[in-house]
Formats: sequence, structure tokens, C-alpha cells
Amino acid sequence: MKLCMVGVRGHNNYVLSGLPLTEVSVAGVCTAAAEDDPQLLLSKCRDLGHEPEVWDHPAEMLDAVRPDLLSIAGPFHRHAEICVEAFRRGIHVFCEKPVALTLEGLEEVAEARQAAGVHFAAMMGLRYDPAFHTAWRQVREGAVGEICLLNTQKSYRLGRRAPFYHDRSIYGGTIPWVGSHAFDWIRWYTGKAFRSVYATHSAARNRDHGELEVSAVCHLTLEDEVFASVSIDYLRPAEAPSHGDDRVRIAGTEGVIEVLGGEVILTRAGGDGDERLPVHCDRQIFPDFAAAAAGEVQPLLGPEDAIEMTRACLLARESADGGRIVRFP
Amino acid sequence: MKLCMVGVRGHNNYVLSGLPLTEVSVAGVCTAAAEDDPQLLLSKCRDLGHEPEVWDHPAEMLDAVRPDLLSIAGPFHRHAEICVEAFRRGIHVFCEKPVALTLEGLEEVAEARQAAGVHFAAMMGLRYDPAFHTAWRQVREGAVGEICLLNTQKSYRLGRRAPFYHDRSIYGGTIPWVGSHAFDWIRWYTGKAFRSVYATHSAARNRDHGELEVSAVCHLTLEDEVFASVSIDYLRPAEAPSHGDDRVRIAGTEGVIEVLGGEVILTRAGGDGDERLPVHCDRQIFPDFAAAAAGEVQPLLGPEDAIEMTRACLLARESADGGRIVRFP
Repeated sequence: MKLCMVGVRGHNNYVLSGLPLTEVSVAGVCTAAAEDDPQLLLSKCRDLGHEPEVWDHPAEMLDAVRPDLLSIAGPFHRHAEICVEAFRRGIHVFCEKPVALTLEGLEEVAEARQAAGVHFAAMMGLRYDPAFHTAWRQVREGAVGEICLLNTQKSYRLGRRAPFYHDRSIYGGTIPWVGSHAFDWIRWYTGKAFRSVYATHSAARNRDHGELEVSAVCHLTLEDEVFASVSIDYLRPAEAPSHGDDRVRIAGTEGVIEVLGGEVILTRAGGDGDERLPVHCDRQIFPDFAAAAAGEVQPLLGPEDAIEMTRACLLARESADGGRIVRFP
Repeated sequence: MKLCMVGVRGHNNYVLSGLPLTEVSVAGVCTAAAEDDPQLLLSKCRDLGHEPEVWDHPAEMLDAVRPDLLSIAGPFHRHAEICVEAFRRGIHVFCEKPVALTLEGLEEVAEARQAAGVHFAAMMGLRYDPAFHTAWRQVREGAVGEICLLNTQKSYRLGRRAPFYHDRSIYGGTIPWVGSHAFDWIRWYTGKAFRSVYATHSAARNRDHGELEVSAVCHLTLEDEVFASVSIDYLRPAEAPSHGDDRVRIAGTEGVIEVLGGEVILTRAGGDGDERLPVHCDRQIFPDFAAAAAGEVQPLLGPEDAIEMTRACLLARESADGGRIVRFP
């Protein structure tokens, strides 16, 4: 299969590290912002033995190359429009999250995807993380019984962020950019629909990063009186042992399971106190995407996941901006 | 000083374990619910060398014994009324939390306390816990800079709870009973006022415990755009290594400090990764209360703490019952 790649602002490493495990060839690369330089991406593709042509405009590339697959990694505010361009041409899309920065854009993506019937996945790489994946298998096998409560955390180092993070209109906000993972975990672990969200966020004390919010809390209610908290921050010191401190804690009728520091800890009724489980995941995100596009596997990430995760991000941001509880449609 | 004790439904162990460190003598004990038996409390007092008289009614005991100090430990729905009885007699009060189950009751407590000018403290024993106390000293000394975000957790074993936990009108609800600690931590660590709260709670899947809520999430906004999450549950399995899994994580401009599993972990700007700090607290809650009543020390817990912690509990419960954001007055 032929792949085109648009953009250099996201997790292209998911594509590049997965390519050698597939039969996919990179046929074209392009950016969608004048200030983004495709040269580094191009040289990484060449290092892997691909010889993509470089294009100036995504639509032009899609018409000329006619790829089977498209990966999209920024600018974030153009994700929706580029997704729609691809879907209209029958191309399967692997898109950085969130897949839209407005609810209107998201509806266009959902409709075009539905009409095309192609595969669509967002770059929610943490579903393939050994610890998060292990916890998911445990939960699915009933390790904690019926889920009642989830607490999630995304804590990042701020460092010095590129200018496109400083501007809400192109960055989209911290709840979508960082919180998307937590919303995805909550849907994935519970299999339940969101009912409402209340969120707050703040750009105070952001070390001169414009509109970038450095702290946020989201509070979700799901069906069946299941609650979830999402804590998001860019307050992790540079000296911390890792970039991100990603956590999830899931409490159910039969126990509590937790991902913390890359470990999975299960405390279950009838069990032996706090048990540390061996972690693994035998799938990778890009090969999974490509195989699903070829109709060969049931992927971990499907179109509905991309769309509903993005919807949750945008409604939470709306709640935080408006200072009010927002109901899901 | 002479102490009277009312009630057997709370943390009388705070009083009993602290008594030997004081010059306080227990002069009277009493319950305030016909079904509560004072005999076990009486025998524990005798084991410590006290010979209190047993009374049928709190007010009668206070008039006859005229104690300097009163401790109150249930029934929870009578805390406010008994506090007021004591304040009107000029008695210092050490009361189980929350100190009232209604906002009207709380106002009466606050007014009577103010008029009496006596000392008043709630049984927030976790301020004296070595780990929580160590984290507080660190925060006060600036270890994390300006606080932006707090995540707190109270997770308990449910076990089989006495009938008074099943009835909201005498139990008061899980947000006040369990969450009170978290509200107190947030005020204590930040020194900031609450602005609003959004909360949800559920009695679903409570293993036949009537109205007792087994899960709750509260989301607080404080002054200066500081946010706090509170996760509360009774979902900790019987096989867990301890009754409670109490946590707080405080993220600020200069680092993150956390209490987790009885440890204090500090990750600070300019520091050396995750540092585990030695924990200690050289004060005890009841001796601190008694010494403050005698005017000898500045206690860790004062009247305003008891009242504002309780107000936060009751407004959060109001939010959860009403499904709406509640502003603080």
C-alpha cells in the first residue's frame, strides 16, 4: 500500500517506527503550514529506504499520488479539513489527535468518513503502551468487576514550547491536546458513553506561553452513574525522571487497578494485596492501522474512537471556557 | 482540665491515645443516641485511670460536671446542636467531622462559637499524620512554588457498615464523612479560599448499604485559578494492605509533591528526580487541642478550619444532590 504523510507537528514517530513491520511504502510527504519544513521527515523516510516525493499542498499530493493511506500530523487546526479531503478520495486516514478543533469540523469529518466507509484512526498511542494495554485486558476480563470510578492523570514537562502551542486558534487548547488521551482511556476502559462534563482550565503561571493552559481538571459523568476525573498539567519539572507522568486508576465492585509509573498494580477482592502484574502489548499502532485498512485485523482504534474522543475534548473545552456543565448530545 | 465525652461513633481513639500526654481528666461520658452503649468507652477511660460518671443526656452532663473541654463523636446529625450547647456554657469543643449536617446548623455553630470565644477543633487527624504533615511543611517552605493544582484521594474499605451509615439523615453522606479530609487538606495546603464546587456521587453498587454513596468526585475552584479534584470511594477491597488509600498530589510552579502509600515524594525544579523524604510529625491532635484550649499553643486546627471544611462538605453535597455548580458565599 502507498502512504502519504502530511505535517510534522505530531507523532510521526508512530508511523516511522511501524513502517518496517509493514509492506507500506511512503510515496509522498507534505506540510500544511508554510513555516513547517518537511526536510527532517523526508530524510527519516529515506533512512528507512523510502523515496517519497515532496509536495506543497496536501490536496495536490493526494490527487497526484493517489495513496491508499494518509497520515496527518498538524497543523492541528487543519486536521479536520485534510481528513475530509482524504475521505472524499477514499483514502484511509491515520490522524494526530484531536481530529478537529471545532464541533462543526468534527461533524464534517464524521460525515465524510461515514460516506467513504474507509478506516480512520487517531494517534492514541497510549492504547498500545504495555502498561495501559495490560490494564485494559485485565479490566475487560473482569479483574475489577463493574467499574464505578476512574481517576486519570496526564502531567507533562512544559519545557519551551514552539509558538504554535501559544495560540489557541491553532493549538486548540490543553484539554484537547493533552487530555485527549484521558478521554480515550475512559471510553476504552469502560465501554460506556459520556453523559456530561464539567471542566476548568487556566493559563495562569504558564511561563510566558501565551494562551497555553498549564492546568486543567475535567469531571465526567458516564452512563450508569460512573464518574471519572481527569487531571492535566504541564507542571512536571524538567528534572523529573520522564517527560510524562501518565496514570489511570480504575475502581470497581471487585477491586482497583492502577497504571502508575509504567507499572500495573491490581488490588482485587479475594486477591493477595497489591499485585504488580507483568506488562506487555503485542501490537503496534501504525501496523495495526495499516492492517485494519487492508481489512486484515480488527484494530484497537476505530473511527468511532477518533470521533467520540475528539467530541469529549471539545465539549470539555467548551465547559471550561464557559464555566458550565455541558451535556453530551 | 476536666473533659466530658459525648458519643461513640467517631475517632474517640484520638482522645484516648492523647490523654496520657496531658493533665486532662475525663469527668463524664454520655451518648446521644438511645442505641449507643457507653460501656466500652467507659472501660477504656478506666483503663487509663479515669473515673468518669455516665450520663443519659449531654446537656444534663454539661450542667452537672461543668467541664472545661468536651469531645463529641456522634451521632453526626446531633453534632451541631451539642456543639452549641457546649459553646453556650463556655466549653472548648473537640468535635468529630463534619461539625454539622446542614448549612443552618453550621451557621448556629459558627455564631455560638464566635460569641463564646472558646477553642474549637474538628477531628481532622490526618493533619497530624507524619506523611501529610511533612508534605505540608514542605509546601509551606516553598518546595513546589506557587500551587496550581491538587489531586486528592480518599479510598476506604466498605466492609459491613452499621445501620447509621445507611441513612442520609443521620449519616450525612459520603462527601461530608469521607471527603471532609480532602477539603481540609486543600484549604490547609493552599491557604486559599474556595470559589465553587461541582460534585457527583452515587449509591449504586453499594452492596445493600441503603443510601450510602460508595463513589463521589468533587471538583473545586479556589482563588487565583487553582483547581482541586477529590476522588472518594468505598471500593477498596478487604484484601488491600490497609483500610484507607489516602493521597494528595500538589503541583506548583516549582515542582510536584505527593503523599502516596504513606510516603512523601518530591519532584522539584533543580532537584534530583523523585526524592523520597523522611516523614514525621511531632504533634498529636488531642494534646494540641487541649494545649490550645489552655492558651498554651497555636494549634494546627482552629475554629475556622472546622467551619470552612464543613461548609465545603455541605456545598459539595448540595452540588452532587442538585447536579449543579455551587458557588461559595
